[in-house]
Amino acid sequence: MSYETIIESKTKVVKIGPDHPFTIIGERINPTGRKRLAREMANGDFSRVERDAIKQVECGAHMLDVNAGIPLADEPQILHDTIKLVQSLVDVPLCIDSSIVRALEMGLEAYEGKALLNSVTGEEERLEVVLPLVKKFGCAVIGISNDETGISEDPDVRFDVAKKIVERAMDYGIPREDVIIDPLIMPIGAMRYAGRQAFHILRRCHEELKVNTCCGASNVSFGLPNRGPLNGNFLAMMMANGLTSAITNPIESEINQSIMVGDVMMGNDENCLKWIKKNRKPTEKGSAGGAGGGRERRRRRRG
Amino acid sequence: MSYETIIESKTKVVKIGPDHPFTIIGERINPTGRKRLAREMANGDFSRVERDAIKQVECGAHMLDVNAGIPLADEPQILHDTIKLVQSLVDVPLCIDSSIVRALEMGLEAYEGKALLNSVTGEEERLEVVLPLVKKFGCAVIGISNDETGISEDPDVRFDVAKKIVERAMDYGIPREDVIIDPLIMPIGAMRYAGRQAFHILRRCHEELKVNTCCGASNVSFGLPNRGPLNGNFLAMMMANGLTSAITNPIESEINQSIMVGDVMMGNDENCLKWIKKNRKPTEKGSAGGAGGGRERRRRRRG
Repeated sequence: MSYETIIESKTKVVKIGPDHPFTIIGERINPTGRKRLAREMANGDFSRVERDAIKQVECGAHMLDVNAGIPLADEPQILHDTIKLVQSLVDVPLCIDSSIVRALEMGLEAYEGKALLNSVTGEEERLEVVLPLVKKFGCAVIGISNDETGISEDPDVRFDVAKKIVERAMDYGIPREDVIIDPLIMPIGAMRYAGRQAFHILRRCHEELKVNTCCGASNVSFGLPNRGPLNGNFLAMMMANGLTSAITNPIESEINQSIMVGDVMMGNDENCLKWIKKNRKPTEKGSAGGAGGGRERRRRRRG
Repeated sequence: MSYETIIESKTKVVKIGPDHPFTIIGERINPTGRKRLAREMANGDFSRVERDAIKQVECGAHMLDVNAGIPLADEPQILHDTIKLVQSLVDVPLCIDSSIVRALEMGLEAYEGKALLNSVTGEEERLEVVLPLVKKFGCAVIGISNDETGISEDPDVRFDVAKKIVERAMDYGIPREDVIIDPLIMPIGAMRYAGRQAFHILRRCHEELKVNTCCGASNVSFGLPNRGPLNGNFLAMMMANGLTSAITNPIESEINQSIMVGDVMMGNDENCLKWIKKNRKPTEKGSAGGAGGGRERRRRRRG
């Protein structure tokens, strides 16, 4: 059941897939909902973008999402310039994020390597303009499981949209593995079965479509208190249903920790070495070199 | 896809199932690995049992596991007496836990209500002696997915053992819903794909066998540092694959928190009220009465 999506910067390769450690795509370079950042970027001040880029990579982001969605600004040009800037600062691959096709195109023109394009939906008019760009630039693309009719509450309908996007991409000569599906996570406070819906779509994407998946991790907890553990545990639950990447904030420790646990439990932190390295107390020495020593303990005695 | 197992004390009913909040079975009344408790229980000192019973229920245990497995002691008599004692102190239903058939029987004789018996395996000689007890006392039983050949590393073989236990129970006239399968969680530090194995068995139990599932929550992290978040996130991951109950320590806050998140994300904490009640800051007032206000926020702008 293995498949992988390869994303590249000038010098780095990221492999997304169920047999690789989970891919963290840093979400911070996005002026949506960040008024100060939006104002600065519109005025040509990219100092916060620079700090966000460096900090997120330091905190473990494997890729960075770059969005320049500022109302009334020249988004295509700003996105182009931001991509150039971020690539000059950090060597991780980027996710080029816009709802404006011309901005996606100018981002791709600025980018060196094989980018991830964020995003196309199942809407006909989007498919017809975005997929040719994906083909032309040889990048990968995030396909969001909604279409002209909106976001269905029936997860099988959302899966059918995902399937349509994958099939349409293949019609354009885009390899299946270059489409990553976003199942669209709804807020659990407003939609009781948003979690079950997500798990169902993710599992079908993994088992039937055999494509990678990506989502925003924090939408699920919108409106609820103490969001850190909600977002963290929910990410782990999605990983247990096949989720292979997320656009999230690598600076939040609870999210980072849950992803580390997820990698351990999916068998993608070999010998649990990353977990042990991160969590071993400085005083512990004797237990180095792996966990459990090949022995098993059973909770109950057996007769 | 709904099914439920009903367990009862004299006065309380616990319903285990995918559409109910997760069932926490307190693990503390078990002398295995607790030398002081073992010595005390063997000497007729049950003060620690009393404290453990009350404390676990205070911390949210819906049921308590009671085990009296003390080497060289009269386990059947001690289990009998402990069951009587615990039922006099707390009103939650109990899980009668022993590897000795005579102890299971004396525990059942002492118990008032419909107990959960822990456990039977897929071994022929166990099935032949334990299932008649289950039928005679009208209780429910935990079926562990190993047999004479041991614990297979192939999750489909373990599932077949689970299926055999369910079918054999039905041959004895025990209703399918009175069998709860334990998929057997192995330590991830010693077995890389222990997590994936567990998820696979749990999902098949949920989708194909349509039976409840139960497991010990802490074995997975044996030998690893910082076990709290490993156990907590792993429980949430198992819940996302259908796990409906666990024998665990309700006093550990990370486990409790992950189970609360799991209930939210499976839609079993209606309107997220338990989460909100537990996590709302005392100063917050305006946001009472549910989360999100029925509105949705989307992470990205759409064109």
